[in-house]
Amino acid sequence: MNFGGILAGGSGTRMGKTDLPKQFLMLGEKPIIIHTIEQFLISASIDEIIVAVPQNWISYTQDIVEKYCKSDKIHIIQGGSNRNETIMNICYYIKENFKEEENIVVTHDAVRPFVTQRIIKDNVELCKKYGATDTVISAIDTIVESENGNVISAIPVRSQMYQGQTPQSFKVKEFIEQNEALTKEEKEILTDACKVYVLKQKPVGLVFGEEYNMKVTTKYDLKLANLMLNNLSDKED
Amino acid sequence: MNFGGILAGGSGTRMGKTDLPKQFLMLGEKPIIIHTIEQFLISASIDEIIVAVPQNWISYTQDIVEKYCKSDKIHIIQGGSNRNETIMNICYYIKENFKEEENIVVTHDAVRPFVTQRIIKDNVELCKKYGATDTVISAIDTIVESENGNVISAIPVRSQMYQGQTPQSFKVKEFIEQNEALTKEEKEILTDACKVYVLKQKPVGLVFGEEYNMKVTTKYDLKLANLMLNNLSDKED
Repeated sequence: MNFGGILAGGSGTRMGKTDLPKQFLMLGEKPIIIHTIEQFLISASIDEIIVAVPQNWISYTQDIVEKYCKSDKIHIIQGGSNRNETIMNICYYIKENFKEEENIVVTHDAVRPFVTQRIIKDNVELCKKYGATDTVISAIDTIVESENGNVISAIPVRSQMYQGQTPQSFKVKEFIEQNEALTKEEKEILTDACKVYVLKQKPVGLVFGEEYNMKVTTKYDLKLANLMLNNLSDKED
Repeated sequence: MNFGGILAGGSGTRMGKTDLPKQFLMLGEKPIIIHTIEQFLISASIDEIIVAVPQNWISYTQDIVEKYCKSDKIHIIQGGSNRNETIMNICYYIKENFKEEENIVVTHDAVRPFVTQRIIKDNVELCKKYGATDTVISAIDTIVESENGNVISAIPVRSQMYQGQTPQSFKVKEFIEQNEALTKEEKEILTDACKVYVLKQKPVGLVFGEEYNMKVTTKYDLKLANLMLNNLSDKED
């Protein structure tokens, strides 16, 4: 089975406890997270959707899902204290509730509402092939490396550089095994869920995203996202 | 002396010969390039401004400069057939018309109208110190490297990765000497003007740009830029 794993924040401390976390802000006529969930709901490649939110936002999320996109396919669970823990919670939930060897989870930022059907489909297909995927776009700007933050140490070959987006997809069983084998120190270093695969020299297939598959994390992003929503038809030129 | 070097396109072939090149499109009440020139015009760090445009756009540029921001400081010259050649044309113009050993050129994309006074000032100061500068922002996304375009080959340490913007600043004399020493093959590889410094193990100082110091190259960017223009006061959050 193939699962959507919607990452809607860990403990929520970064957002502040009183403010409405960004994933719940309105984009057009629906909360951002609803736009995102809907893309997974209409995907023929996805069987069930696990939405991980901070514990104190579970009932709120249940309410808005009920209101905007009620479906038996949607499971709302508690996230972890960081991104990788949240992915692990989703994987454990899948392992406990859906017994199967070859489950795939397509993890995606709740605040990237412009993910496309093609991107989700490519994630599932390439994850079957490689075992893991990362969604990327070709680097728009020249990428520059600086070890000390004062002078350039390298300018890598631009055509080999990509900017990471989500989804990132994994075979659930392997993801759990690999992450349970990590030491506490390794866990702190591996801020990106794909990095453990790269370090263990396991393949991570590239899915090509879209420049407009943007992350909505600031008030300004939200303005851009509203502009996007109204202009998606003529974004290319 | 310190020069602004406004890079407004090479031969113009990429834009098509009949269409108005992007740098001349209106942003608010003025063409994009005028916004950019004005930032250099009001900078106390900049003495003279060299604007390099395609040969067939020289008189048009003279007309709009006359109309919007007439100044004896502005010199309009012909660009080259690529970015580096355009920078070289600017450097040669400075060498021939302003005799001095320590001239600095702050080269900047005409289509980045949101460059700030602070960024220009930092470029001049750090260029005096290091001999060359590159304006960058910390990488917003995880940067991923792929040698074959199919699977990830590395995920570099995110905190050491930056996205290049402009200005890029150089000591004029050294820039000319270095570029004249390059072979034709080297010139084709060195798509980024700073890369020759890195290869020769000469320091390039980092100037920190701004996320909103964006490049306006598509119709959609222009919409964002207009949004920016109206919202610069509350872009941070």
